[in-house]
Amino acid sequence: MKTVRTVDELRQELRLRRAQGTGAVGLVPTMGYLHEGHASLLRQARKACGTVVMSIFVNPLQFGPNEDYETYPRDEARDLALAAREGADLVFIPSVQEMYPKENRSQIIVSRLTSKLCGASRPGHFDGVTTVVSKLFNLVQPDFAFFGMKDAQQVAVLKQMVFDLNMNVEIVPCPIIREQDGLALSSRNVYLSGEERRQALVLSRSLREARSAFEEGRLETAGELRSLLTEVISSSPLADIDYAEVLTFPELEPVEEDAPLSGVEGEIIMALAVRFGRTRLIDNIVFTPKEVPACV
Amino acid sequence: MKTVRTVDELRQELRLRRAQGTGAVGLVPTMGYLHEGHASLLRQARKACGTVVMSIFVNPLQFGPNEDYETYPRDEARDLALAAREGADLVFIPSVQEMYPKENRSQIIVSRLTSKLCGASRPGHFDGVTTVVSKLFNLVQPDFAFFGMKDAQQVAVLKQMVFDLNMNVEIVPCPIIREQDGLALSSRNVYLSGEERRQALVLSRSLREARSAFEEGRLETAGELRSLLTEVISSSPLADIDYAEVLTFPELEPVEEDAPLSGVEGEIIMALAVRFGRTRLIDNIVFTPKEVPACV
Repeated sequence: MKTVRTVDELRQELRLRRAQGTGAVGLVPTMGYLHEGHASLLRQARKACGTVVMSIFVNPLQFGPNEDYETYPRDEARDLALAAREGADLVFIPSVQEMYPKENRSQIIVSRLTSKLCGASRPGHFDGVTTVVSKLFNLVQPDFAFFGMKDAQQVAVLKQMVFDLNMNVEIVPCPIIREQDGLALSSRNVYLSGEERRQALVLSRSLREARSAFEEGRLETAGELRSLLTEVISSSPLADIDYAEVLTFPELEPVEEDAPLSGVEGEIIMALAVRFGRTRLIDNIVFTPKEVPACV
Repeated sequence: MKTVRTVDELRQELRLRRAQGTGAVGLVPTMGYLHEGHASLLRQARKACGTVVMSIFVNPLQFGPNEDYETYPRDEARDLALAAREGADLVFIPSVQEMYPKENRSQIIVSRLTSKLCGASRPGHFDGVTTVVSKLFNLVQPDFAFFGMKDAQQVAVLKQMVFDLNMNVEIVPCPIIREQDGLALSSRNVYLSGEERRQALVLSRSLREARSAFEEGRLETAGELRSLLTEVISSSPLADIDYAEVLTFPELEPVEEDAPLSGVEGEIIMALAVRFGRTRLIDNIVFTPKEVPACV
């Protein structure tokens, strides 16, 4: 595994590998502080691609002024060990100066999709994401790019960007990875106190309960599911709900509040963002109401 | 020369050519109704590249609601003849439906640069330009893309976009091509009445006079040059000035009004937009105050 820190080295390494005809290139963009979720992305990339590139970059552009850019957890040595263990060929760890050598004036803006869910609570966040991801796409020119479905809205937004701008890459969404007790893996889990960590289980539990209630026919409508999610989450005294939504996926459009979800074509997302103290956690489940829901 | 109308055909043709190892790919993006200016871009591309692709697409996204999208002149047969004569290998003429098969939600926005000059009078124009050009870049994946300096601001904006987003293409600016009497070639010149056409010569004349006055040391400052430009243009009764500006190039930042331009590092642009009846014409000259100015 090679570690490169500059755009020039990255391009040079990729040129070499492409000249050797090492097949499809897969990109796993991350902000580091890697966990099993990232490892699963690397494994999926490894299966599909001759060259696996991981990027590690905490992108200032996607953090709001009062967010955790400065304190976002970092552990490069551990990240490199994990990347090597999972068979990455190339790890790109640029500095902020390398990614934004001059004041950045160009942004990719995806409308509509980015005004919902996390976009509503984190203005500008997705503009930062689409901008840095398009830079990474241009630098790496991957055939496939792997993203975790924990950030389901990010997947939806990036698919829209790739479609609209005719980008030559396929976005591959990968399943959410969870702790044994159900908590979705996140680099931000490290912020949680013991008690917050315990109460944070209410996210996955509320999703599981809503899914079961729908599967078993006890609840039928978006309104009912949303009420159940809110009720279950509110049973945790430390939980401060940012949103608990039921929308179409990947369009993220509202569905009729009082009509049976079984009338909806395509997929539905139940999506949560909940604060525990100063930590904001997200979780979701995507399912097809006309079929048996997928596992949380 | 092959003419293709769909994204799939375009990609297929380019794959074939790349597999044959035909060298660098040059792209000449146009809105059609081709003239000698476009021909000069094709010739420059032909000199530098093994594969020359011309696109012809009147992009609705870059026209304002009260602009001339509907009436923009079109003549496909003549365009194809010119492209063939100048040695294009591939002409891409997509429909609007082919370029925007669903409602487009993704835009590339370049800030600052796009608020000046034409950006101020044509809000959203450059967002439409950067968006469609990035789509064409993703579709064609050219090594070089050729643009006329008549649209100098477009060149500046696209260079900024390519730099900021790490796009793998070099923007090649090509000189303005003029009629014998000095009028800069433009597809929109066809809109002019005989009298408007005659009076429109004031654009290039004002630029030539300002350049001479600066060269000969009669005028020294941006303020003086701007006054001369305005005075000369205003001598044409049909001329309605949108702007007559003196800015740095390619940054498009103001320069000190009353300081000698010879103190400015780098290049300066004198840029004009003037209406004659319902037709808006632009022209410019870029020069380096510390050196002898380039020819208009």
